This record gives sequence, C-alpha cells and structure tokens, in this order.
Amino acid sequence: MQLKNDLILRTIRGEQTERTPVWLMRQAGRILPEYRAVRDRLSSFIELVKTPERAAEVTIQPVDLLGVDAAIIFSDILVVPEAMGLPYEMVENKGPFFPETIRSEADFRRLKVADISDDLAYTPEAIKLVKRELEGRVPVIGFAGAPWTIFAYMVEGTGSKTFSKARALLYNQPAMAHRLLQMITDSTIAYLKAQIQAGADLVQVFDSWAGILPEEHFDNFSLRYIAQICEAIHEAPITVFAKGAFASLQAMRYLPCETIGLDWNMNIQVSRKVLGSSKTLQGNLDPAALYADFKEIEKNTKAMLDAFGPYQHIANLGHGVYPDTDADKVRCFVDTVKEYSMRMRES
Amino acid sequence: MQLKNDLILRTIRGEQTERTPVWLMRQAGRILPEYRAVRDRLSSFIELVKTPERAAEVTIQPVDLLGVDAAIIFSDILVVPEAMGLPYEMVENKGPFFPETIRSEADFRRLKVADISDDLAYTPEAIKLVKRELEGRVPVIGFAGAPWTIFAYMVEGTGSKTFSKARALLYNQPAMAHRLLQMITDSTIAYLKAQIQAGADLVQVFDSWAGILPEEHFDNFSLRYIAQICEAIHEAPITVFAKGAFASLQAMRYLPCETIGLDWNMNIQVSRKVLGSSKTLQGNLDPAALYADFKEIEKNTKAMLDAFGPYQHIANLGHGVYPDTDADKVRCFVDTVKEYSMRMRES
Repeated sequence: MQLKNDLILRTIRGEQTERTPVWLMRQAGRILPEYRAVRDRLSSFIELVKTPERAAEVTIQPVDLLGVDAAIIFSDILVVPEAMGLPYEMVENKGPFFPETIRSEADFRRLKVADISDDLAYTPEAIKLVKRELEGRVPVIGFAGAPWTIFAYMVEGTGSKTFSKARALLYNQPAMAHRLLQMITDSTIAYLKAQIQAGADLVQVFDSWAGILPEEHFDNFSLRYIAQICEAIHEAPITVFAKGAFASLQAMRYLPCETIGLDWNMNIQVSRKVLGSSKTLQGNLDPAALYADFKEIEKNTKAMLDAFGPYQHIANLGHGVYPDTDADKVRCFVDTVKEYSMRMRES
Repeated sequence: MQLKNDLILRTIRGEQTERTPVWLMRQAGRILPEYRAVRDRLSSFIELVKTPERAAEVTIQPVDLLGVDAAIIFSDILVVPEAMGLPYEMVENKGPFFPETIRSEADFRRLKVADISDDLAYTPEAIKLVKRELEGRVPVIGFAGAPWTIFAYMVEGTGSKTFSKARALLYNQPAMAHRLLQMITDSTIAYLKAQIQAGADLVQVFDSWAGILPEEHFDNFSLRYIAQICEAIHEAPITVFAKGAFASLQAMRYLPCETIGLDWNMNIQVSRKVLGSSKTLQGNLDPAALYADFKEIEKNTKAMLDAFGPYQHIANLGHGVYPDTDADKVRCFVDTVKEYSMRMRES
C-alpha cells in the first residue's frame, strides 16, 4: 500500500521535504490516558506486548491523538532475550527483572538464537495489524535493542546505574562476552528482518546503555555488533540511537546506517560536523523540556529546529518521553515542529 | 607541618615529578574490610560521617592499606543540604532519601545558608584529627558536591536515572532554581573554606549528575556556580570533576581551577587538547577494569598512563571505586601507577 505520509522516508533519502517529520520515542505509552485504559484491562505490561490486537491498538493511538508522522510498534527490547531462553518480569515502578542471568559458560545451556516464528511471532503479527489499520497514513517503525544493551540486562539481571556485573564480564571473559553478543546479534537481525517483512517501513536500534562503556569497549563490544546488524538489513532504512556515545560519534560516521539518533546532551552542530552530510540526524530535545509551559516549549523546539536546519532531520526528543508528561505538551511540541519547520523553508 | 609526600601538590603546580601520584575516589569505604569493621560498630553511615574520630580513622585506612598518595576525608556530599535544613537518610542498598524536598517557594522556609561552625563542624574536626595522625605522610583532600548535584537531590529527594523533577524545575521555575543554587553555592564555599582552614591541602568538587543536563543548562545552572566556588577558593588548589560533561569540556577550560577530573568515557587525548596545557588532569581508568585479573589491570593501567603522559596527571579511576572491588586489585592499580610512571620518566 502506498504511504500517504512518507515524510520520514523522503527525509532519510536526503530529499528536500515540505516540512520536518516528527515522532517521539515512547510515544505509545503512559503519557496517553487512552493507553492506560488498554493497559489496565490486561494483567501485565508483557501481556500487552504479546497480544497483537492490543499492541496494535496502542501503537496507532499517538498517530490519532498526537499527530505524529510515524507509528512505532509497541513492544519492549527485552523480548529478544526472552525468546533466547531468558524470561523476565516487568516490576511496576522498578523495571525489568531476570530471575536467571548469564554469568558463566554453564549459563549458555539456557540459550539459543531466537526462533522468530516460534518465539517472537507476536511482534510481526502486531505490525501486520497496524499496517492494515493505518491504511498507509504514516510509516511504521520496527525496533530492537542493540546487542550491548540486551547483553547488559541478561548479565546484570536488572537495570543498574553502573551495570558493573555486565561490564566485569567484558574484562574477565571477553571471549564469552563476544559469544553472547553474537547470539544476540543473530537473533536481532532475524527479528528486525521479520518486522520489515511484516510491514515495518524502517527500523531503529536502541543502545540505551552505550554511554557507560569506555570508548574501546563501545567500539569492540557494541559498535561492531551494531555494524553487523546494519550490514545485514538491506530491506529498509535503519536508525542507530546510541545514548551517551559521545566519544564514538566519529566512529559512527562509518556505520552503514541511514540515520543517527542524538541524545539531548549531544551538541547538534558538532554532531552534524562529525557525522558528515550523508547521515540523517534524529532528535534531540531534552525530554524534561516538555515540563515547561507552552511558550517555553515552542521556544526550545524552534531553537532545536534552527540548530538542525531544515533537511536531513527527523524531529524527536533526545530520549523517550517521560511518562508523567502532559499529552498537551507533547502536542505542542509536535505542532511547533510542523508549523515552524514549514516556515523555515519559506524564508 | 611539612608534607613528606607532596607529589600531588607538585603535580598540580605543573612541576616535573619523579612519578605520577595516585589515589582513588571512594578509597575510604566498603572495599576495605577494615572500614566495614568500623562501620559495623556504628548505627548508620551518617553516624560515621558525624563522628570525627571514626571518620578520621577510616580516612587514614587507605593510606596504610593501599599506599595511596592522598587521604580524602570520609564524608558525604549530602551533609550540605542537611546543614541547610533538609535532613536525609541513607537507606542501605538503596541510597539517599530526603523525607522533605524543595519544589516550591514555600519550601524555602525550611532552608538557610549552612552555618558551618554550628551544623557542619564535624568535617573540619575530622580533618584536624586526620592531619594530626597523618603527621604529613600525605596531603588531605577536602570535598563537596557541586551545587547542581546537591540541588538535584534536594528537589528529587532520592537518586534517579533521569532526575526529571529536578530538571523540570530548571525549565519551569528558573528564578527559583537560581535562588536555591546560590544558597547551596554560598554554603559550599563556606564549607570548603572551613575544610581548608582545618588542614585540607586541596579540595575537590563532585558534579556527579552533570551528565544529565543539556549543554545550555549545564553552563547556566551548574558551571556558573562551580565557577563561583573556584573564584572564591584561593586558599588551596581545587579539582572539578563533572561526570559526563562531555559537551562542556571546552567551557571548563576557562574555569579558575587547577585540576579537571575525567570520567572513564572521556577520551584522554581529546580532553588534553580541549582543556589546554594549564590544567592538571585526573583520572580515568574504568572502575570496572578492576574486576579483571592482575595482568589485565596492569595492562590497562599502563595504557592509561601512556595516554596521559608523565606530567600534569593525577592517576585515579574515572569514577568512585565499586564497593565490591577486591582490595588486592586496587593495590595492583596503585602499585602499577607507582612503578610504571617512574619508568616512564627514565625512557
């Protein structure tokens, strides 16, 4: 089906567009009362992720309610380790918890490369439903966690400020770490391909914990696996968002991906210069900026748009929208991007 | 009293020294069984901080047990907000918790600029004891949190991955935020001066949460108050450690401080270039590197020393030592710095 709004895809191809496209990381989620209504009817977050009809429903909500230029499939990065043999729970107000973790060679007996059609069919299934219901209104974004971030949870077992157990393994058992990262990478490539096959128009890889690795470790244990993913995915454009990977921006210039996501601490001009003109950039308003009043949000959004310039930019926040953000503030951000970026092209 | 080991002070003055000095952030603490023995005899972490004899005892332990070139006074950055009128608890395995927080103008009625001699006398008192007992063996480091980091805890009330409530205030009530930051700054200057008066040979300001601020906010709400502190402290050299402040390294070049601490994600060569030759640099081995075997620790420590070069460098980790680190691994790090940095000067 022909897309009616393909602004994001044209922007990624480097075309001059009539305005800057906009969406938000975590746009399908707790910021919308309509999401909470769906969620409350199910027993858990993970049940919502695994129920294609409901996942599709909340995926489409922000297109209707916020006016964004893309729908990102409602899911969770940790479905991949689960499909590899390591189940987890999502503890309310605390985050993910893995009862079993990977710390030694013996723990590998639990693991396999994920079989998508067996263990992860619900996400492609939800994407198919979204595509059908959207009728080409906006593109659909598929996604997965980057291998290092998935590894960090599989070893640590929970979120952590330091992920010191996961990072210890990189120093102590690098060969084992590479083996696990390769299994995650193989699973992730298959998972992303299945999402594209089901209809995802582009995909994004989230390296949420890139910023805790020293430069050499990021290059060796994270970036090389992200590069493998980028090299394997030819079917759709790919966006890489490596939060906090300041020191390695230069290296990311050579990633075979179309788009690089910037977090809200990254200087836009410096990043543009370091990453070169062949990449589209995505981001990067501070999520906390949406706590301000409407006038201030407009001002900061315009300043961000000016810094990126009109082309090769997909407007977004510099991280996922915070769950207690007022939906009207999100709409103000979206509307400001649409109106102001159109005016930028007239002047 | 004349210092017998003034390597750190000579390094800070830019002198050519016989070897690179070394100490570790959080060296006095849970890594040492001798610390845990003292701590277990007291009812709480905060009681230990407030008991000068015991605080002095654990301050000196790493000088004897690890062979470091400085003693950093055992204390906590959150004693300053407590002295300003906002008491806190340290919850085991969870971190600090403030029952009352600062979110509105009305909350200011709780607050005052800290009166050091009334409310914070225990730290200078402990420093006096340390100085007396050390008999000049090594210099003593005093410290305080940077105003933004203290502000973040006073507003948020606990540690947080996003400090979204504290950051919301910067967008919503910037005038109030500046007023609170100024009160913290005034308290901190008085506190650092009292520590120097009591005998601290140098002081360090820790901006642990610098890295979650967008560049303009770091410059406006953090760096300008750190600059005020640096300008006010003439009595001893000052080190600024702003974790994650990548985007603002350039601005930190112009801080009137002698030393800049680098975290483990900061590229040493880039930082040296950006910060210029007038600053001494401190850091920055990944704390997780001390989980490796001895050979690997030696290798990584030598690589770090090579990257910094022999002079204007104080060897340290890039963040506080992780509490579950083996003390023998810490000794390996310290010994490697001492031996290898001496050899670096021979070649």
